[in-house]
Amino acid sequence: MDVYFLGTGAGVPSPRRNVSALALRLDGPRGGIWLFDCGEGTQHQVLASPLKLSRLEKVFITHLHGDHIFGLPGLLATRSSQTDAPLTLYGPPGLCAFVRDALAASGTWLAYPMEVMEIKEGMVCQDASYRVEAARLDHGVPCFGYRITEQERPGRLRVEDLARLGVPPGPVYGRLKRGERIELPDGRTLDGRDLVDPPRPGRAVAVLGDTRPCTASMDLARGADLLVHEATFADAHADLAHRYGHSTARQAALIARAAGAMNLVLTHISPRYDAEDEPRLLAEAAAVFCPVSLALDHSVHDVPEQGVPAA
Amino acid sequence: MDVYFLGTGAGVPSPRRNVSALALRLDGPRGGIWLFDCGEGTQHQVLASPLKLSRLEKVFITHLHGDHIFGLPGLLATRSSQTDAPLTLYGPPGLCAFVRDALAASGTWLAYPMEVMEIKEGMVCQDASYRVEAARLDHGVPCFGYRITEQERPGRLRVEDLARLGVPPGPVYGRLKRGERIELPDGRTLDGRDLVDPPRPGRAVAVLGDTRPCTASMDLARGADLLVHEATFADAHADLAHRYGHSTARQAALIARAAGAMNLVLTHISPRYDAEDEPRLLAEAAAVFCPVSLALDHSVHDVPEQGVPAA
Ligand SMILES: [Zn+2]
Ligand SMILES: [Zn+2]
Repeated sequence: MDVYFLGTGAGVPSPRRNVSALALRLDGPRGGIWLFDCGEGTQHQVLASPLKLSRLEKVFITHLHGDHIFGLPGLLATRSSQTDAPLTLYGPPGLCAFVRDALAASGTWLAYPMEVMEIKEGMVCQDASYRVEAARLDHGVPCFGYRITEQERPGRLRVEDLARLGVPPGPVYGRLKRGERIELPDGRTLDGRDLVDPPRPGRAVAVLGDTRPCTASMDLARGADLLVHEATFADAHADLAHRYGHSTARQAALIARAAGAMNLVLTHISPRYDAEDEPRLLAEAAAVFCPVSLALDHSVHDVPEQGVPAA
Repeated sequence: MDVYFLGTGAGVPSPRRNVSALALRLDGPRGGIWLFDCGEGTQHQVLASPLKLSRLEKVFITHLHGDHIFGLPGLLATRSSQTDAPLTLYGPPGLCAFVRDALAASGTWLAYPMEVMEIKEGMVCQDASYRVEAARLDHGVPCFGYRITEQERPGRLRVEDLARLGVPPGPVYGRLKRGERIELPDGRTLDGRDLVDPPRPGRAVAVLGDTRPCTASMDLARGADLLVHEATFADAHADLAHRYGHSTARQAALIARAAGAMNLVLTHISPRYDAEDEPRLLAEAAAVFCPVSLALDHSVHDVPEQGVPAA
């Protein structure tokens, strides 16, 4: 499970950073991709990345500002030439009309079934592997942050203990793993609950939209393995950040610290800062919280298993 | 006056060619730019070019397929951070709703006055320097080709003749240039009409949208100094070209020849052709018409004064 940044700039594209988009790459054989926001040129960034639109399963939109959605119609159209697998979009009210109008005006026909869900706060979707919750942030227009959590995974069956007890592998292992109590042919009884490690909590990633510092951000980021937070401005422009509904790098770090997040990645950097200014943003955040890094277009941030340090 | 190609591919972006857009750079001190089509990522291509959105005066849309319009909302929004000069959009019915809906959904406010004109065949606009005419092409959906013509410019005053006649420079030159008849202090009379070259015809550029070969194309390209024609397919795929409402490179060349155009530039090349296939498309066109070239993203094609060969 990792996060691949496709666009890490704010408002307008710059030669250094495209407008907002990131891909969450899921573990497991399905190798699915979930996209968060889709600024103009996201499909171009995908084209220059190892990602495949055919693997894209879901798109989550934080809010409807142009730098977060103007790449959506083109990406949806291009995906149509690559797969007929279904796609689901989630986002604030108005998303459905935006997509429908753009596709209708352009006469775009999609080769795959697409569902657009206009969401409220709370549980957005879940399956056997993941659940996604949303909360409303503080950005003027309706804007959501998302928390993606792996479902709790069953504890590991201690096969080394079973070997020591002289129980050969077979269907009985499965029953023990499910916590059943069984009787062996030799008359001994075993309780699966004694032979299975405690359930492993799933990892959690919080991907927030544009926002001023707010308690909803803190709730979404609580104990998260990774927090992706906007850092549109440096501390010297805290007044602008507040006026336009954004955060400074330092404010993002304060949220990460208050929430007890494990890792912080800053994105949505204003094009007013060039490569020479960026170390300042990072330093302002690092004075408050670590580990913290500044996302770049095409940078990848791993979400390590809990207790396993990031590579 | 030249044409700067921003996107020369068809349908979907490729690493080699972005989707459709080209800029006509006008002569004169105003250095204005007119954009023809605006596929996704056009503003990114502008950012990587010497063009300035603040110089953009007009946008002409050939048709509403996504690869020709999905860059429009983002480009309009970004232009707003660079100028408050007015902008006019021209295109087929539906353009107004597309732009209005995308800007409304995203809450985009433009700092400049914008007018959207849904056009019919015939004269689209004109001022003292240029006129633009449109005709309906053959692409399934409503699709226009445009012919941009410089207004006829007054003939040159032959100052060398006046010097020989001993007439010193002064206000009298302006009156003669306007074709007036004047009396000199020494009693001689001069007729401006004898001292001014014939009016110079303006240059004409035809920029066509996606189309099968059709007579409207030929009319728009009649005697044009430059014809920009789509060449989505190679000859081997003429059946696909016909089925999807497109032309082959050879068909584009046949139009240029029949119309008596002076120069042909091919664009809107299908991403199915890679860099190694492209010489074939060019050869197929060059067998029929020359001079012909294949546009590349960021290539520039001069429109020389008549009688002056292109550099
Ligand atoms: Zn934003
Ligand atoms: Zn096209």
